[in-house]
Amino acid sequence: MFQEICSELDAAYEEMVEIRRYLHMHPEVSFMEFKTAAYIAEYYQKLGIEPRTGVGGNGVVAMVKGGLPGKTIALRADFDALPIQDEKDVPYKSTVPGVTHACGHDGHTATLLVLAKVLHKHRENLEGNVVFIHQHAEEYAPGGAKAMIEDGCLDGVDVIFGTHLWASEPAGKIQYRTGPIMAAADRFQIKVQGKGGHGAQPQKTKDAVVIGSQLVLNLQQIVSRKVDPVESAVVSVGSFIAENPFNVIADSAELIGTVRTFNEEIRTQIEQEIERTVKASCDLYDAAYEYTFDRGYPAVVNHREETEFLANLAGNVPGVGVVEESPMQMGGEDFAYFLQHVKGTFFFTGAKPTYSDTAYPHHHPKFDIDEKAMLIAAKTFSLTILQYQAEHAAVTAGK
Amino acid sequence: MFQEICSELDAAYEEMVEIRRYLHMHPEVSFMEFKTAAYIAEYYQKLGIEPRTGVGGNGVVAMVKGGLPGKTIALRADFDALPIQDEKDVPYKSTVPGVTHACGHDGHTATLLVLAKVLHKHRENLEGNVVFIHQHAEEYAPGGAKAMIEDGCLDGVDVIFGTHLWASEPAGKIQYRTGPIMAAADRFQIKVQGKGGHGAQPQKTKDAVVIGSQLVLNLQQIVSRKVDPVESAVVSVGSFIAENPFNVIADSAELIGTVRTFNEEIRTQIEQEIERTVKASCDLYDAAYEYTFDRGYPAVVNHREETEFLANLAGNVPGVGVVEESPMQMGGEDFAYFLQHVKGTFFFTGAKPTYSDTAYPHHHPKFDIDEKAMLIAAKTFSLTILQYQAEHAAVTAGK
Amino acid sequence: MFQEICSELDAAYEEMVEIRRYLHMHPEVSFMEFKTAAYIAEYYQKLGIEPRTGVGGNGVVAMVKGGLPGKTIALRADFDALPIQDEKDVPYKSTVPGVTHACGHDGHTATLLVLAKVLHKHRENLEGNVVFIHQHAEEYAPGGAKAMIEDGCLDGVDVIFGTHLWASEPAGKIQYRTGPIMAAADRFQIKVQGKGGHGAQPQKTKDAVVIGSQLVLNLQQIVSRKVDPVESAVVSVGSFIAENPFNVIADSAELIGTVRTFNEEIRTQIEQEIERTVKASCDLYDAAYEYTFDRGYPAVVNHREETEFLANLAGNVPGVGVVEESPMQMGGEDFAYFLQHVKGTFFFTGAKPTYSDTAYPHHHPKFDIDEKAMLIAAKTFSLTILQYQAEHAAVTAGK
Amino acid sequence: MFQEICSELDAAYEEMVEIRRYLHMHPEVSFMEFKTAAYIAEYYQKLGIEPRTGVGGNGVVAMVKGGLPGKTIALRADFDALPIQDEKDVPYKSTVPGVTHACGHDGHTATLLVLAKVLHKHRENLEGNVVFIHQHAEEYAPGGAKAMIEDGCLDGVDVIFGTHLWASEPAGKIQYRTGPIMAAADRFQIKVQGKGGHGAQPQKTKDAVVIGSQLVLNLQQIVSRKVDPVESAVVSVGSFIAENPFNVIADSAELIGTVRTFNEEIRTQIEQEIERTVKASCDLYDAAYEYTFDRGYPAVVNHREETEFLANLAGNVPGVGVVEESPMQMGGEDFAYFLQHVKGTFFFTGAKPTYSDTAYPHHHPKFDIDEKAMLIAAKTFSLTILQYQAEHAAVTAGK
Repeated sequence: MFQEICSELDAAYEEMVEIRRYLHMHPEVSFMEFKTAAYIAEYYQKLGIEPRTGVGGNGVVAMVKGGLPGKTIALRADFDALPIQDEKDVPYKSTVPGVTHACGHDGHTATLLVLAKVLHKHRENLEGNVVFIHQHAEEYAPGGAKAMIEDGCLDGVDVIFGTHLWASEPAGKIQYRTGPIMAAADRFQIKVQGKGGHGAQPQKTKDAVVIGSQLVLNLQQIVSRKVDPVESAVVSVGSFIAENPFNVIADSAELIGTVRTFNEEIRTQIEQEIERTVKASCDLYDAAYEYTFDRGYPAVVNHREETEFLANLAGNVPGVGVVEESPMQMGGEDFAYFLQHVKGTFFFTGAKPTYSDTAYPHHHPKFDIDEKAMLIAAKTFSLTILQYQAEHAAVTAGK
Repeated sequence: MFQEICSELDAAYEEMVEIRRYLHMHPEVSFMEFKTAAYIAEYYQKLGIEPRTGVGGNGVVAMVKGGLPGKTIALRADFDALPIQDEKDVPYKSTVPGVTHACGHDGHTATLLVLAKVLHKHRENLEGNVVFIHQHAEEYAPGGAKAMIEDGCLDGVDVIFGTHLWASEPAGKIQYRTGPIMAAADRFQIKVQGKGGHGAQPQKTKDAVVIGSQLVLNLQQIVSRKVDPVESAVVSVGSFIAENPFNVIADSAELIGTVRTFNEEIRTQIEQEIERTVKASCDLYDAAYEYTFDRGYPAVVNHREETEFLANLAGNVPGVGVVEESPMQMGGEDFAYFLQHVKGTFFFTGAKPTYSDTAYPHHHPKFDIDEKAMLIAAKTFSLTILQYQAEHAAVTAGK
Repeated sequence: MFQEICSELDAAYEEMVEIRRYLHMHPEVSFMEFKTAAYIAEYYQKLGIEPRTGVGGNGVVAMVKGGLPGKTIALRADFDALPIQDEKDVPYKSTVPGVTHACGHDGHTATLLVLAKVLHKHRENLEGNVVFIHQHAEEYAPGGAKAMIEDGCLDGVDVIFGTHLWASEPAGKIQYRTGPIMAAADRFQIKVQGKGGHGAQPQKTKDAVVIGSQLVLNLQQIVSRKVDPVESAVVSVGSFIAENPFNVIADSAELIGTVRTFNEEIRTQIEQEIERTVKASCDLYDAAYEYTFDRGYPAVVNHREETEFLANLAGNVPGVGVVEESPMQMGGEDFAYFLQHVKGTFFFTGAKPTYSDTAYPHHHPKFDIDEKAMLIAAKTFSLTILQYQAEHAAVTAGK
Repeated sequence: MFQEICSELDAAYEEMVEIRRYLHMHPEVSFMEFKTAAYIAEYYQKLGIEPRTGVGGNGVVAMVKGGLPGKTIALRADFDALPIQDEKDVPYKSTVPGVTHACGHDGHTATLLVLAKVLHKHRENLEGNVVFIHQHAEEYAPGGAKAMIEDGCLDGVDVIFGTHLWASEPAGKIQYRTGPIMAAADRFQIKVQGKGGHGAQPQKTKDAVVIGSQLVLNLQQIVSRKVDPVESAVVSVGSFIAENPFNVIADSAELIGTVRTFNEEIRTQIEQEIERTVKASCDLYDAAYEYTFDRGYPAVVNHREETEFLANLAGNVPGVGVVEESPMQMGGEDFAYFLQHVKGTFFFTGAKPTYSDTAYPHHHPKFDIDEKAMLIAAKTFSLTILQYQAEHAAVTAGK
């Protein structure tokens, strides 16, 4: 059956590209993806599948019911775009000023829709159901995943698979990783409340620029001295604002930054160490502070069994040349929440464009993908479904 | 004659207050003091003195010609206001939104105008001329003093005296100081050009927030380690701006600050040491920078002989109870330029308001003066003129 | 055969303990292990095996020749002790003042000797040879491994296995890890050459204490900002010496520290970044420096195939209850060199003493092991040899 | 009488040089000046003056009683040497290994002895007494001055004068200063108690080298941010000791340094700010500390009237070419204690050697003086005594 599905996917590749380019030209930012959600729902309706819409927001969930008993497998594609101006010079350039699909979610969506269409044809032979989770708002915390789960999108699901088209690696490469693959991404904000004054009279002030600077440097020691060196962690202050006339000593300074971790204990340790650092830095001047630490998505932690399963079969997917372990990625993904509820794995599908020498990174104004990667992703999902259902059906039968 | 002049000043005190309050209600910011200049010029014209107007900008210079030969003594009053909202609750509150005389220049002007009126009556008995320099734009570099000097306001002047109404000390106190009394006030600006990037990937960036913070701390060592500790110096960074989303590492940071010194060698040393510090801090990350050091007013350096002369006579001025050495003041004043051209001294006339417990500092939205201080300043100037001319006339006669 | 070997090892356990305790009571520090080497050689001679002695120093190499053709497998045990005073209160306490086996090398040696004795009996049935590498001087760079390899100890060896008795984990646990398992351990030394002077006159000096302190803090940024956060690295300054009278500013300061990495690129990056940091820190004061970076052992990088092989069989070893992935260990080991020449893996054999609640860390004056762990290690080696030779003999036969 | 005294001093110059060179060849360190004290006492005895010996330790006090009523004036010379090896190549080189008069106290002593001899001849005409205070132990806190005062050396004294031969200025220059002329010199000691550990596991430690380095940098901000910039202050860490093997993270670090101030309020502020800084720096790691601040000599604060008196007459002393205001000196002097008890002033007598191009600073192994300066000092003291007694006798008479 896999051969057949592959042939049909090949035949539908043109449609896949059309869908992706249509979405690319009509991007919508996180939580505002009303038309995109409608587009997806309509696609399923045309197939004769009635999707659930409005799942946890703009989420859409559709199911291809298998004709045979077996496991229910979920696939997930996110579909929001970014508030970035498209700077590519391509025919399918975004038509919305200041908004573009600079992270490949258009491709994720096209992949799943066409795959659903093909699998729908073969539904009678499927040993279990396939759930297509079209998730809104991956790019903007609190994200859509959590709300969709709360709204039941995983009900009855046994296992979930997801992929990200990955522009830094060429099409034909699949990257997997057991355990943490993407980081927890948190945000912190610190207000140092010193005491302003005249630039010529530091002794009457509590110089918030000096305190803030001290703080930035002290924060470096969290990673260099306080976190177990075999754990990965990042503490970055992205913003430092204390705007004053040149001859005024700052009354206050505002620092904003991010923390990335793969381990909940380290995450909590850093949250606490930042506060200790803020406090000690302010104590030097008996200054006050406000500190908030906003937890973003947790780390994406892949399950071992499902990851090895995927890693072992990926080499058999037509078009896949390299299957390798991924390094841990410091970026965040709310796919993390799905893996907290059901088993599964999240992998990367190489998608570096070939029309240019430069592979622009995700979120870059010129970001693009190699569309062939969608076909490879669809085939990888297909083989995953067939083989997973086969193995688990067999087990069931064997009981 | 001094007794007589004092009586006449006492009698004119009400006018002095009226003038000061009129100016207070109609403030104009530096370089925009067109109406104030016209007001001053008109006052002299009414006295029958034809002033020079438009001196080096909005400056006004008037002379009371003495009937007897002798030294030409200049007095100076500045007359610009500040771009600060008046927050006092007084009948003479500023009528101009966002502009107020928060540094007492209105009082300086009123003092000189009324003094000119009184001395003009006694001109036949004066042993030399008195030049009244009404200077615009003291508050904003490059200031008015330099331009007025270039435009000839000191031509023929032998010696100059100036005072500042001083709100931190009570009326009745005169503060003098030989040598440096007010600091050179310079401005520097540093742009750290790092390399921005994703907050989760510091290794691909040159973090401008970290470099800038390092720089702020390293700058502290100029005063603590590099400047002779018996010299006074301040290096303050007032502004630190690197505004970015929380998950972005800063591409650049802009720091703006001030340097205060009393000694030209130290001033030049600090200008150079800041650059060395900037360079070494950026070298840690192979980052680039732009550095500018804009020299403001030089230090006000009082001449010894004239200062001792003033200090010795001040105790004899009616209303003066305390004559003491002033600490060095870290603020700047473009009176400095006058003292680079002719001998003289600049002193402080206590003017702390008595209607409130709080003496708001200069440039504070609620700053005010004790108007009686104007009378004391006028009498101090009078005695200075009479005694200086007497002493030097005597010397001339004695040759 | 494995069952039989296990029984014989059980029977020889008492001898194993005796050997270990004898060595424990007669420790010799790195490069001075003359008597220990002689003891080992004599043991083999008594078995009827003529070992090579003086291999690359005090190294001893013995071979059990298999009666059947097959792969040559090497096992390695190090045998040097540490310059630490034994503070344990046990009957087998070190008899040498200031020297003790505080890292378990005595146990490594006892394990291999008794294993050799048992395997020697079964040599006719072994499908290949087993080489016993008794390595001197693991504790002190440049170590004995490199010299032994240069002296031919790996000649003819196809694969190598080694273990470390591991006092932080209980007996019965085996820890493996593919890829880097122990860190590269390097040493750096920095002399900051400032300019000394009187404590009251910092402006005439280049304060080496301030420069050195700056440097220590700047070094923190290498790990926090410059190294890829998914890589592990440590930069620690262990020693800071600038000894002076209280009223003297330091002329120079000496800093000594260590760098730990698992990746050669990161290792080289850090070596270079330290120098950049030293230079920029000294440039702040136009001070001079000397910098040396002495490379110690490289990282121990286990080969995937051999590691998985070991991980899969370990659960079948009698006495082994838990087989798990090891975290990366920041300590160094010159077993690293063997793995640069032949395939193989290095694993940890849990050996936490049970007679005390406290498990003292390696190199602690009270460090001890659970001797039962030696038996487990010997059995694990046995199964490894039998199974590895079986698999590879089979393959050969199958061709 | 002054002319006569000057002639006699000129005639006794050779003796003055002999005494100075004898003392120079036989130096004794602070509190061990037994032979020097005996030498001084014997000199007075030969003059027929019975000195008090053992005053507050090794101190010697002698009095020339004036034949006429008047003020009692004290002069002070210290006489201890330093534990420094004499490296000069001169005939009068120190004969004591490791000890030398590297601060000119030998010259101070010779000046006073010969001056006493000459004044003794004129005692009948002196309008008051002259007390010669030969003070031991100036170089080493707690110094000899305090103990001598407690032992009565100032009893009956109306005013005191002292000078220091000053090798950075040429003979012929006298430097005076009203108010603070030499600094308070204090010592502080800080022990940072972190938690040691393995260099590869910073997360298990509280790195005392990092904490100490942080502390050194934070201390810089006391002078740069917390002390009024018109006040002079120095905080220097002279010693930083944390000695460990390269792969060990420091358990503790010891910092020792000095504070110099001219103002008791600033002195106390700094004592407190150091502790705040230590505490906040340790809090970053929840580390402990010990902090001691040992007050050394207070600032030498000259009295205005006596200083102006000295400054006005110094120009009339034969051999004096320049009389100028001294900069504040950051070094300490226990002459400070005398000025806390009686009025007086301490001044500098230029004494830069002419036989060499280089003027080695005080406490340098090659330090030397221009011996002619002793003669100038003696004459300056003479004129001071005569004129002071004359002025005050007149006043008394006038009552």
